[in-house]
Amino acid sequence: MTKAMVSILMGSKSDWPIMEQAGLTLGSLEIPFEARVLSAHRTPDALFSYLETAESRGIEIFIAGAGGAAHLPGVIASKTLAPVIGVPMPSQALNGIDSLLSIVQMPAGVPVGTMGIGKSGATNAALFAAAILSLKYDHYRAQLDKYRKKQAQAILEVAHPAG
Amino acid sequence: MTKAMVSILMGSKSDWPIMEQAGLTLGSLEIPFEARVLSAHRTPDALFSYLETAESRGIEIFIAGAGGAAHLPGVIASKTLAPVIGVPMPSQALNGIDSLLSIVQMPAGVPVGTMGIGKSGATNAALFAAAILSLKYDHYRAQLDKYRKKQAQAILEVAHPAG
Amino acid sequence: MTKAMVSILMGSKSDWPIMEQAGLTLGSLEIPFEARVLSAHRTPDALFSYLETAESRGIEIFIAGAGGAAHLPGVIASKTLAPVIGVPMPSQALNGIDSLLSIVQMPAGVPVGTMGIGKSGATNAALFAAAILSLKYDHYRAQLDKYRKKQAQAILEVAHPAG
Amino acid sequence: MTKAMVSILMGSKSDWPIMEQAGLTLGSLEIPFEARVLSAHRTPDALFSYLETAESRGIEIFIAGAGGAAHLPGVIASKTLAPVIGVPMPSQALNGIDSLLSIVQMPAGVPVGTMGIGKSGATNAALFAAAILSLKYDHYRAQLDKYRKKQAQAILEVAHPAG
Amino acid sequence: MTKAMVSILMGSKSDWPIMEQAGLTLGSLEIPFEARVLSAHRTPDALFSYLETAESRGIEIFIAGAGGAAHLPGVIASKTLAPVIGVPMPSQALNGIDSLLSIVQMPAGVPVGTMGIGKSGATNAALFAAAILSLKYDHYRAQLDKYRKKQAQAILEVAHPAG
Amino acid sequence: MTKAMVSILMGSKSDWPIMEQAGLTLGSLEIPFEARVLSAHRTPDALFSYLETAESRGIEIFIAGAGGAAHLPGVIASKTLAPVIGVPMPSQALNGIDSLLSIVQMPAGVPVGTMGIGKSGATNAALFAAAILSLKYDHYRAQLDKYRKKQAQAILEVAHPAG
Amino acid sequence: MTKAMVSILMGSKSDWPIMEQAGLTLGSLEIPFEARVLSAHRTPDALFSYLETAESRGIEIFIAGAGGAAHLPGVIASKTLAPVIGVPMPSQALNGIDSLLSIVQMPAGVPVGTMGIGKSGATNAALFAAAILSLKYDHYRAQLDKYRKKQAQAILEVAHPAG
Amino acid sequence: MTKAMVSILMGSKSDWPIMEQAGLTLGSLEIPFEARVLSAHRTPDALFSYLETAESRGIEIFIAGAGGAAHLPGVIASKTLAPVIGVPMPSQALNGIDSLLSIVQMPAGVPVGTMGIGKSGATNAALFAAAILSLKYDHYRAQLDKYRKKQAQAILEVAHPAG
Repeated sequence: MTKAMVSILMGSKSDWPIMEQAGLTLGSLEIPFEARVLSAHRTPDALFSYLETAESRGIEIFIAGAGGAAHLPGVIASKTLAPVIGVPMPSQALNGIDSLLSIVQMPAGVPVGTMGIGKSGATNAALFAAAILSLKYDHYRAQLDKYRKKQAQAILEVAHPAG
Repeated sequence: MTKAMVSILMGSKSDWPIMEQAGLTLGSLEIPFEARVLSAHRTPDALFSYLETAESRGIEIFIAGAGGAAHLPGVIASKTLAPVIGVPMPSQALNGIDSLLSIVQMPAGVPVGTMGIGKSGATNAALFAAAILSLKYDHYRAQLDKYRKKQAQAILEVAHPAG
Repeated sequence: MTKAMVSILMGSKSDWPIMEQAGLTLGSLEIPFEARVLSAHRTPDALFSYLETAESRGIEIFIAGAGGAAHLPGVIASKTLAPVIGVPMPSQALNGIDSLLSIVQMPAGVPVGTMGIGKSGATNAALFAAAILSLKYDHYRAQLDKYRKKQAQAILEVAHPAG
Repeated sequence: MTKAMVSILMGSKSDWPIMEQAGLTLGSLEIPFEARVLSAHRTPDALFSYLETAESRGIEIFIAGAGGAAHLPGVIASKTLAPVIGVPMPSQALNGIDSLLSIVQMPAGVPVGTMGIGKSGATNAALFAAAILSLKYDHYRAQLDKYRKKQAQAILEVAHPAG
Repeated sequence: MTKAMVSILMGSKSDWPIMEQAGLTLGSLEIPFEARVLSAHRTPDALFSYLETAESRGIEIFIAGAGGAAHLPGVIASKTLAPVIGVPMPSQALNGIDSLLSIVQMPAGVPVGTMGIGKSGATNAALFAAAILSLKYDHYRAQLDKYRKKQAQAILEVAHPAG
Repeated sequence: MTKAMVSILMGSKSDWPIMEQAGLTLGSLEIPFEARVLSAHRTPDALFSYLETAESRGIEIFIAGAGGAAHLPGVIASKTLAPVIGVPMPSQALNGIDSLLSIVQMPAGVPVGTMGIGKSGATNAALFAAAILSLKYDHYRAQLDKYRKKQAQAILEVAHPAG
Repeated sequence: MTKAMVSILMGSKSDWPIMEQAGLTLGSLEIPFEARVLSAHRTPDALFSYLETAESRGIEIFIAGAGGAAHLPGVIASKTLAPVIGVPMPSQALNGIDSLLSIVQMPAGVPVGTMGIGKSGATNAALFAAAILSLKYDHYRAQLDKYRKKQAQAILEVAHPAG
Repeated sequence: MTKAMVSILMGSKSDWPIMEQAGLTLGSLEIPFEARVLSAHRTPDALFSYLETAESRGIEIFIAGAGGAAHLPGVIASKTLAPVIGVPMPSQALNGIDSLLSIVQMPAGVPVGTMGIGKSGATNAALFAAAILSLKYDHYRAQLDKYRKKQAQAILEVAHPAG
């Protein structure tokens, strides 16, 4: 079995229908990943235990989805030197503007690479991870190139919207 | 020397001019406190060490000021059962609306009692801590009662604004 | 019958489906409470009458839910020294951002410990009340500890979201 | 001495530089008024005492300025049948959007006629009071008509902005 | 037939389900009114014709509902000395925050007394009109007093929300 | 066949249900147009190829609909001297406020004439294109005049909303 | 003397320092214009008189700057078939977000081509007017082309920011 | 001379005082970079020319700062497979919330890793680039580790804010 290179984390199982897009996209690019539910607020100790061994097990990048006072990506970033990509969940009351600000407005010193709110953001988190891995592994660059070309082709095929 | 009952924490020394209001107000109510700069993102290990011994040293309530992706109050709340009071700093770009949402929109399970943005919020954090301590210690209730009456008196004295 | 220690107030019966979460959570922690519909704007006199006797009847903490120009928590706080916890309702037009700002942005001198918008906020109001009572009553600290551990356990059981 | 017909209330003397515009405008329309500092949160009892006698002393309209969790206009409206006009103060952190929402989003049943944020709003509160009084007292209608014509004239005189 | 004293205007027939609340409330207070669809942008000339005769026909107050770039209340206010009460419609994309700001942020000189967004605002517009008319006509004050008491009673009857 | 004078562009076929309003309105004014799906981000080269020949084929005005980080109108404007009209799509999470700001806040030097969010904006984009073409082609002015009169008539016919 | 082709209107002389950018840009493109202070709210009759003769005097396009409840562009658009370009002023309290929404969110049927907030928006209003006039008058297209090339050149000259 | 590995791009020289933080941080980590002013809107062709050769010259990561309708990062991302990091400038009117949304809300398919608004975001863009390069080049991981430890040390030294 291939070792996971990307870790997809989320604070609640209810985030999975959105974060699943990250998994599906990584899968389509043949990038091995693992997904876990771990909460910065409700299971901090389990989260820290997970983070302590993740990199030695082969994880190179973390993707973290979180909603509301969305601390998960920032808390991960405080404990690792690896790139952390944050995905704001569309929160119930405020549609994710709270999640976005809680993730992106990190203080100088501890960055989180933030994506857009919701499913598009989750998909893009996977593509951004692929772009990072492409710098190091040539075959991921080829995968990413193929993905982008296929995506362009899909748009060009519906060029006449009313047709 | 009296043991501190309230801990005032902030992520950066630049938050002190605002958080100092909490200290001054606690002081005027004769509630012993200590103040520390500890960052959830930049010094997580030092923060966790501090939290491990705080309650055994006598801390009953935490007041935490934070700005931007303001995780400090929520990270403290994830590691203690004691009441955590959050004070949103008026952040540079977004005036503190980011700080407010990052503090108040906590997930079900781990609450932070959130105050208003800036100096008023810091003052109120101290008064809220006093209200909590008043349930247990009668002399703080007397102090708080005196504070509120003095404050009412100060307004009544300028009742004619143009005068 | 046990005397209520926490009072849950709301301005309209239509707030009950959200504020009920506070009641259910207090119940699960075995903290006795009472719930009342009393409006700061529409029944101010009945509200003030209620507040005059509440503490002598044993109420130690007020939890108040309100929406829109959400004055109820602040009006209660103006008439008591006890801790007041505010829960912003998800208002019809503005999703609760109006409720949140109307509750949290209290002037220096009269604090309201504000929770997040909606059901999570109502649950957290109860947990925050429990954290306050835990300082004074040891058995509530034990209850709260048990609640937090159960909640952590529930997350760890679904750690593999896709599984 | 003429009896005041309009009461200008504000929660803090620091609101006077803005609320003074209401006074100056009422003065220029020869509408007698009185101005008081009374806080809904910090001096609720003094506020209620004031309101109990205001109408019998001749007050027909209340103008209330307030900032942040701006409860003053709503609290007045809960205790009177007279028209209450609210003026949102430009609050320190959020520029008055919190004040505006806290004043305007009143629940069905207890209205506050809300003006714009800051000095323009204070001026307009006076003009709106004049429009109300004009329905009952013909000479105020004449005053208001003169004011509006003078104001139009002032604009027409600078019609060529670069000139 | 009784002459209308209040004019309810709106820019589109689709606003009627909300503005109808103003009509129903005026009706319950026995205040005669008329309702018209007239658009500041699409039928400006018909609007101005209507306004030219409205006051001579007995209209004392205008209530105007509008959404989006909600100019109707302000345009009416530019052409009359009578009190104009604005009701922001909950607009499709932005939930009425655009409507609210477009109505309330009037320049100094031409006020609009603004209500909350949507049905509550429409109800309150009628009650605010009643408060204005109460200054001049004693029987409306009695009606308004009765309305407020009935409304308080309705809340007190459901005081136990879970019951 | 008549040559298209207006080009309606959008980044995704899912924008068509909204942008179709622009097409329907242009059609009702007898202004020939063409509609294409071309993405600034996903098919930049195809977009630039399209733009290179559009004006020589007779296109005088571009209407571009886009959502989220809505770059399409601005990217078109960077490559043409023709008027570009932008229509913000009501985005999934933020209701189109992101789309609006991404389109309207262009830097000095490269303007986009921005319409309101959603279907009204798409309709208005067509009417604005018609107003531009009316300066040059008299018969479009006649068409536009007829459209505006019909629209006024439609409102006047429902003048009594309750009727 | 050349007849003005573009009319720059604003509601207050205090808007001129911003709207002057539109004048300076039109001037640099050699497009004749006139500028007037006319308020939709405070001088509606003078505004309508101005609009009645503007087109017959040669005005082809209106540029209107307005702040707060910024009705001027929409009111102009309600009375003309010519293109109306709106420029939101950076309002005192809300930085122009109120002005922007009040201008851009026009109802279907009466469009305003909206620019960004403040000086950039005023400059762009002039460039957008030039783009419109370029469709009809070839020499303005040449002027606009020259302007855009000069602007590109100015950026390329400072390509090394630190240099 | 060392070949640049990171390209810092911005649309205007006026962005340099903020983007300079990215340069200073990269410098302190000994990561070679180059900085250029190139506008997505005003110099699109020069931008595309630059992008065509950048990667073959050794650029592995792009950092792009932009304000208002901040298209630069997204336009770069549309033309490269390399990671693009976006830094929202604190725009004049809206403090950078427009810049943030215009950068972060990218459509699925073309990601931009977004940082916070302003100088903190620029610093973090450099640190995020370092985290990415650390996956491939071990000595940058050592540099980054040293940077983070020094930063933690700096906070711990001021742990007593009042001292």
